[in-house]
Amino acid sequence: MEQTKSTNIILFSGDYDKAMAAFIIANGAAAYDHDVTIFATFWGLNAFRKDEKMTLPKGKMEKMFGRMMPRGAEKMGLSNMNFGGMGPKMIKKVMKKHQAMPLADLMEMAKEQDIKLVACTMTMDLLGLQKEELIDGIEYGGVAAYLAEAEDGNVNLFI
Amino acid sequence: MEQTKSTNIILFSGDYDKAMAAFIIANGAAAYDHDVTIFATFWGLNAFRKDEKMTLPKGKMEKMFGRMMPRGAEKMGLSNMNFGGMGPKMIKKVMKKHQAMPLADLMEMAKEQDIKLVACTMTMDLLGLQKEELIDGIEYGGVAAYLAEAEDGNVNLFI
Amino acid sequence: MEQTKSTNIILFSGDYDKAMAAFIIANGAAAYDHDVTIFATFWGLNAFRKDEKMTLPKGKMEKMFGRMMPRGAEKMGLSNMNFGGMGPKMIKKVMKKHQAMPLADLMEMAKEQDIKLVACTMTMDLLGLQKEELIDGIEYGGVAAYLAEAEDGNVNLFI
Repeated sequence: MEQTKSTNIILFSGDYDKAMAAFIIANGAAAYDHDVTIFATFWGLNAFRKDEKMTLPKGKMEKMFGRMMPRGAEKMGLSNMNFGGMGPKMIKKVMKKHQAMPLADLMEMAKEQDIKLVACTMTMDLLGLQKEELIDGIEYGGVAAYLAEAEDGNVNLFI
Repeated sequence: MEQTKSTNIILFSGDYDKAMAAFIIANGAAAYDHDVTIFATFWGLNAFRKDEKMTLPKGKMEKMFGRMMPRGAEKMGLSNMNFGGMGPKMIKKVMKKHQAMPLADLMEMAKEQDIKLVACTMTMDLLGLQKEELIDGIEYGGVAAYLAEAEDGNVNLFI
Repeated sequence: MEQTKSTNIILFSGDYDKAMAAFIIANGAAAYDHDVTIFATFWGLNAFRKDEKMTLPKGKMEKMFGRMMPRGAEKMGLSNMNFGGMGPKMIKKVMKKHQAMPLADLMEMAKEQDIKLVACTMTMDLLGLQKEELIDGIEYGGVAAYLAEAEDGNVNLFI
């Protein structure tokens, strides 16, 4: 019997377009019956943030990071031609026209396809992000969790 | 008989230096008898653009993207120390001095070594890029084409 | 007998946070008994620079690059929220509070764990970096050295 293939993506970037690429590849791999995991670390964690504002007990620094970082996938900027936020609006308009899925929908599809979403606990600490601020249905882990999957993976990407 | 090894690079970035890295690795892998594919997606597609200006039937948004994105490899900026376009000039001057190949030559070499160049059709749609605007000798595909190669690949990179 | 697994990271980026991610993954993999190599190329070479100022025989262009690029890991900026150098200070303050290792310590640990650090000679030439300027205990190689390791690697990442 053939072994199940696996795709493991580290989502480091907090850019809308890079997160889109990550979730398009992930959803494609899941459709091909891969076991798929997306490990969000550093700015990639912003894709996992809830969009509402929250008051949580935090240090001054952590509060500042929290205020400055985008709350959730649809608030993220582009890696290129961002134009102070105009770029994402343009891209989303073109996406709608071409019936491409926005990032939020790609993430919903990922959950439906049982793609494992893991938030990196070490960088959550650094950026002062707490579990209450992140979307439901995700897991928590560190570099050990990543390596356990990736060392037998077929497609390992850092995005 | 040993199986042919394979290297599969997703070129997401539209930066001159990152595209150089992609093509240097690709050409190296081809020299080591790997089957090599470069999948250009999002801004990476700019490396595959022809350098002439074209008038094609396009929507307003797509025209704007077309005007703002660099036409071809040699027009791309640097990921770092771009200095409004001065950086690429400096790098190219130093490259010439050290007899390093400019990106256009690395791409030519890639074609001669039968490296498969694939343009991502989904992001061509998004950015409003049409086949007429892209260089000859490339193929067209989506995430399925990528995964078919990468799932048995040896060196899979996202650049 | 099971074969030793291997992790091979190309460190292209000169960003503090990306270099941190590279060394955290590398140290993790070494702890899991992987053979680990970090190949620094382009801006990633800055992480390998000594922090002292040096007077070396160099061309004008190479001198300029040398002056403008950060001297060593702790001088590097962030890929996101850099705020003209304020971002790295903030991150380091939070890291200290959470007892996370700064990049310089992660690099020290990498050496202690026998992680191979390789500087890309081709891009050293381009950026005018000489061996005297780089930290001790590293090796020198090109794309061939990278491929020799990566083509049998388990976790290959481009950061």
